[in-house]
Amino acid sequence: MTLKLYFGPGACSFVPHALLETHGIEFEPIMLKLHKGEQYEPAFMQINPRSQVPVLIDGKLIITQVMAIILYLEAKFSNAYFFPSDPAERAKALEIFAWMNNTVHATFMHIFMPRKFTDHEPSQIEIKKFAVSQYRLHLNEIQKYVQVSQELGKEWLTGGSISPLDVYALTLMRWGTMAQISPSEFPLLWSFVQRVGDAPGVKRAIVRERLQLDVSQKS
Amino acid sequence: MTLKLYFGPGACSFVPHALLETHGIEFEPIMLKLHKGEQYEPAFMQINPRSQVPVLIDGKLIITQVMAIILYLEAKFSNAYFFPSDPAERAKALEIFAWMNNTVHATFMHIFMPRKFTDHEPSQIEIKKFAVSQYRLHLNEIQKYVQVSQELGKEWLTGGSISPLDVYALTLMRWGTMAQISPSEFPLLWSFVQRVGDAPGVKRAIVRERLQLDVSQKS
Repeated sequence: MTLKLYFGPGACSFVPHALLETHGIEFEPIMLKLHKGEQYEPAFMQINPRSQVPVLIDGKLIITQVMAIILYLEAKFSNAYFFPSDPAERAKALEIFAWMNNTVHATFMHIFMPRKFTDHEPSQIEIKKFAVSQYRLHLNEIQKYVQVSQELGKEWLTGGSISPLDVYALTLMRWGTMAQISPSEFPLLWSFVQRVGDAPGVKRAIVRERLQLDVSQKS
Repeated sequence: MTLKLYFGPGACSFVPHALLETHGIEFEPIMLKLHKGEQYEPAFMQINPRSQVPVLIDGKLIITQVMAIILYLEAKFSNAYFFPSDPAERAKALEIFAWMNNTVHATFMHIFMPRKFTDHEPSQIEIKKFAVSQYRLHLNEIQKYVQVSQELGKEWLTGGSISPLDVYALTLMRWGTMAQISPSEFPLLWSFVQRVGDAPGVKRAIVRERLQLDVSQKS
C-alpha cells in the first residue's frame, strides 16, 4: 500500500517530504492549504485532531510529529540514509534534530502565530518582537553547525548524504526570511541552504510546494 | 567508564534519571540546583552552553536533549525496555513522546519562565495565564492516553513495562501542580502518576531528587 504524506507548503512537513523525494520512496503527497484553514476541516481533523502537518499514513497507521515520522521512515527504509549509524554521531544528530524541533521551530511559532500564546493583542506584539531576536540567535547556532561540519570536510551536516537536519535547516532559514530576517545576515547558512535546495530530491519537494527560499522581500 | 547524568530536581531530566534507575543501569548522578542558577556556572556551561539539563556523559560523548538521551540509552542497553519494538506501536509512542516534549513541556515553560518569551512584564502575566489554560487541555489529553491504555488492558502507557512516556506523564502532571492545577481535576491521571511514582526504580529517582508529586499546596 502506498504511503500518504499530508503536508502544508513551507511547513515542517517539508522535512519528511524532501526526504521521501531524496530517497525515491513512492508516496502519495496530499497538500493542505494551511492559509485557507484546510487543516481545520472535519475530514482532516479525523486524521489529526491537532490540525497539524505532517501526517504520514501507512495502511491503517497514522503518524504525526515530524520526529516520529522520520524515525519511522528510517526504520522502514533501512537502506535509505536518515541519520548516522555510529551511536555517538547518531546521538549528536538526534540532539540537533530535537533542538530544531522543540526550540527553533517553537520560537518561530511565536513569530508566526503569537495568538497561540495569548489572546491579548498588545502582548502578541511583544511576544513576536522578542521571538525574532531569539530566532536570530538560533539561526546563528545553526550556521555554526554548518561551519563545523564544513571544517570537518562534511558535504552535509551529518556527513556525505542529505539528512533531516539539512532539510530542517533550509526550512528554518526560510522561516527566518518570513520574519524579515535577511539571508545576508547569515551568509554561510544561506549558501548552504541554497545548496540543500538544489539537491535533486529536495528540489522536487520545493517545486511541488512552490516554495521560494527567500520571502523576505515579499511582504 | 561510568555514565554520568546531570539532572535538576523535578526537571525533565527526571525522565532519563528514572529510566536509568528502573533498569538498574550504573551511573553517576550529578545534581544541579537550578533554583540557585548552578546551570549558569562556567563549569557546566562548558558541558552544555545552553545551560539545560539533562546532560548524559558517556566517556567523551556529551548528549543533551531528553529525546536524544533516551534513544541513545535505548540503543546502548538493548535488553532494557524503553519503547515498543513493533514499528507501528513504536511510532505512536515516539509521537506521544515528541508531543510531550515539544508541546506540553514547551507550554509549561510559558508558565514557569514567561520571561523566556518576553521582557515586557505585563505580557509575561498574559502569557502565563493563557498557558495555564492550555496546559489543562494537554493534561486532559495525557489523561486520555492513560484511559485508552487501561481500556486496552495495559499496565503502563505502552504495555507491560514502564516507558519514558509514563515517567514524562508523572513529570508533566507534577508541573501542573506547580501551576496550581489540582490533581483532583485529573483523577485518573493522578492515580496513574502515583502508581508510576511507586514503581521501585522511579521511586529511587524521586527520593534522590526529593520530589513531592503534588506541590499545589506548597506556594
